[in-house]
Amino acid sequence: MKLYDSRMAPNPRRVRIFLAEKGIEVPTVQVDMMTGAHRTPQYTAVNPLQRMPALELDDGTIITESVAICRYFEAQHPEPPMFGVGAKDIALVEMWNRRCEINLLLTVANVFRHLHPAAKTLEVPQVPEWGEANKPRVIEFLEILDRQLAENKFIAGERFTIADITALSAVDFMKPARVAVPDALTNVKRWHADVSARASAKA
Amino acid sequence: MKLYDSRMAPNPRRVRIFLAEKGIEVPTVQVDMMTGAHRTPQYTAVNPLQRMPALELDDGTIITESVAICRYFEAQHPEPPMFGVGAKDIALVEMWNRRCEINLLLTVANVFRHLHPAAKTLEVPQVPEWGEANKPRVIEFLEILDRQLAENKFIAGERFTIADITALSAVDFMKPARVAVPDALTNVKRWHADVSARASAKA
Repeated sequence: MKLYDSRMAPNPRRVRIFLAEKGIEVPTVQVDMMTGAHRTPQYTAVNPLQRMPALELDDGTIITESVAICRYFEAQHPEPPMFGVGAKDIALVEMWNRRCEINLLLTVANVFRHLHPAAKTLEVPQVPEWGEANKPRVIEFLEILDRQLAENKFIAGERFTIADITALSAVDFMKPARVAVPDALTNVKRWHADVSARASAKA
Repeated sequence: MKLYDSRMAPNPRRVRIFLAEKGIEVPTVQVDMMTGAHRTPQYTAVNPLQRMPALELDDGTIITESVAICRYFEAQHPEPPMFGVGAKDIALVEMWNRRCEINLLLTVANVFRHLHPAAKTLEVPQVPEWGEANKPRVIEFLEILDRQLAENKFIAGERFTIADITALSAVDFMKPARVAVPDALTNVKRWHADVSARASAKA
């Protein structure tokens, strides 16, 4: 088994944090997206979508998409549970993970990819107007998240889950995207300090 | 229990197809997105993100995000399985569902929302250049899907899954988005005819 990993990108980091929380070690192969290593014929044979990360199983099966890779390990190593326990909790974890993906990780990525000079070769064409349109959406969602975190230790309740992993990767990706968490969002700031203090955050 | 549903939008349709495949009936409340009914204070109290659909449980819990709603019902009614069986299959269904969401449903939605005059009040601001940039991405992904469907009856293998539901909703949404499936993609066309002939496709 081997994990195709990129140190700088938020999606591969989601998998690394997940594995660290589970205490699972997997050999990795680094693929440098900034030099276009994910677009070589060699990596395109691994993932025709040229996206990171990817997991290659011992039987040659390739699993792409961060959350699909995490679900593979969740099924093999159920403890501690990262995708909820029981119908309602499973649904609420899925809901918050997707909310954080669509409204935070994707919007932050749109700001970075369409506005940052370093992303010029990653996102073709860059559409600066679309990057700008995503900036207020990042903040609007963080306000909703702040209300959720006023009443919950973690994003989907009292347990650390995949939703926290997605949101942590997204919030840390705000730095290269040059968008700041507003000071008024004290619950988001408290949560971010908490999850950043976990050993897995260094992964 | 009640399901907040919108007849014209692709995401609520995913839940309706899923429920039809499972043989589950749920009372629905129609919310007309074209008249902005999803932006009223009443619906904003249901889903602060003002997106459709939403499921309200008898205890008052609200579950939003189509796939989160589907996972709630999958946990309650496991047969027939729509999210895979066993670690590898679960991961491959998740992979293909996400590939179809990110590279097909989202790209088709970007074309519709940023280019169609009827979407002017749904997507503010419309960025036509971003809509145009998504058109070739729709076709590029359909080409990858065509290769997968050359060797598989359904998108994630020999079983109809959530990935087929996502892709069917997305391909049918190409009509209002004014993007056509290229005639050369005969495997996509065969698959689309197959899944459209299922009773659930009318849902």
